Amino acid sequence: MSSVPKRQKLEPADGNSSAGPSEEESEALELIDACQNEIDSLNEKASEEILKVEQKYNKLRKPCYEKRSELVKRIPNFWVTSFINHPQVSGILDEEEEECLHALNKLEVEEFEDIKSGYRINFHFDENPYFENKVLTKEFHLNSAAASENGEWPASTSTPIQWKEGKNLLKQLLTKTYGNKKKRNSDYKTFFDWFSDNADPVNDEIAELIKDDLWPNPLQYYLVPDIEVEPEDEDDNEDNEEEAFDDDDGEDDGEDEIEDEDDK
Amino acid sequence: MSSVPKRQKLEPADGNSSAGPSEEESEALELIDACQNEIDSLNEKASEEILKVEQKYNKLRKPCYEKRSELVKRIPNFWVTSFINHPQVSGILDEEEEECLHALNKLEVEEFEDIKSGYRINFHFDENPYFENKVLTKEFHLNSAAASENGEWPASTSTPIQWKEGKNLLKQLLTKTYGNKKKRNSDYKTFFDWFSDNADPVNDEIAELIKDDLWPNPLQYYLVPDIEVEPEDEDDNEDNEEEAFDDDDGEDDGEDEIEDEDDK
Repeated sequence: MSSVPKRQKLEPADGNSSAGPSEEESEALELIDACQNEIDSLNEKASEEILKVEQKYNKLRKPCYEKRSELVKRIPNFWVTSFINHPQVSGILDEEEEECLHALNKLEVEEFEDIKSGYRINFHFDENPYFENKVLTKEFHLNSAAASENGEWPASTSTPIQWKEGKNLLKQLLTKTYGNKKKRNSDYKTFFDWFSDNADPVNDEIAELIKDDLWPNPLQYYLVPDIEVEPEDEDDNEDNEEEAFDDDDGEDDGEDEIEDEDDK
Repeated sequence: MSSVPKRQKLEPADGNSSAGPSEEESEALELIDACQNEIDSLNEKASEEILKVEQKYNKLRKPCYEKRSELVKRIPNFWVTSFINHPQVSGILDEEEEECLHALNKLEVEEFEDIKSGYRINFHFDENPYFENKVLTKEFHLNSAAASENGEWPASTSTPIQWKEGKNLLKQLLTKTYGNKKKRNSDYKTFFDWFSDNADPVNDEIAELIKDDLWPNPLQYYLVPDIEVEPEDEDDNEDNEEEAFDDDDGEDDGEDEIEDEDDK
């Protein structure tokens, strides 16, 4: 909306007018330019007002999310189940990572006060055999004037994981050979691979799915209707579930959820 | 934001819990469901408020756009030049259509009062050798409860073009063989082909580029900086311009422009 046009001079690029615009045309172009400035300025004001509405509702939603977090703690494996049932996020879950994510007791998405500058995702863990951290945070600084001035924009950071001895899943993954059972539909091979990688903070598909799809409504993934799980003796339940979800809605990339927030 | 989760019953899809949730879990799930309803309702209210802001600014922008339309009339070939200079829209302009679009003296984009239900694009023409119409309108009904009930949603309509004898460009195009000079980077072969085709009103790339990119700021396309047009004797200026623009920013599909309007 407030994008700055890349014009440099008020001369048309039309080959027909290579002699330059007439005086009357130049005057009209100057006036059109003034109109555009007015429109740009209105667009900026509209963006600001919309931001305020968003901020207001972020505040209003907060107690609901906090209440939900408390309730979720009463349900074992709520988050890992929602992750497993999510058509895209499930694609980056390694089997042992799933095991590890059973200790995930709280997920939090916090948008920064000015919303557009970024957000953080906090993963809160119970005591677990894999790492020492109680909270793992991945933070995205997407559009901040301050960060930009320091040449730090855009950027993401993530808490260094303090793996317990012999439990570094990232190291294990490097040496592990995969079967073809798991469908990997993302650039990231695994969850902790995604979490630790900050090479490309822009368009982080997994982070956006967590922020815009899982966080606003995890229940729809925890409670998936009409799912037929055939109980099996062995512990390959995960494969079973994944297959079922591949049939579900593989094309949905979560954008439907985001679309409603556009203010075109 | 306000999408309705597809859950049917409050039972988890996790294979581990195939025995069904415990009483305590069921209670927690009910309460989480209530939280989700609160969140959904807040999301709906946020959407409504944002819509009101959009409507307010649409009204405020309107006089600017009207003033701009009057000024644009003082510049011959303003719109056709902007179209030719637009990296994607230029791709659907047949040479004779370009000729015809020299008669386009006014472009108007009108969002419907409730914005999300659709919009119309009005193309106003001077008397011209090709058709009788003074105005050609393409209208998109994207999300209207009323239209939906009548099974008419989503849909687009376009003014039937009253071609003058022997001037039906659509018919001519059917029999014409193309050289490989023109880059066609769209589903549509030509402009009037796009205008007349209402088979797929959803995700109409060209209409969205006109609405979200050309209409908010045509001047940036009319005035393209640093363009080197080598004057030629013959009347193949169009090819010249197109080549220059193919080099420019062929990969840009206009989303950058649209992105600024998101309020995530």
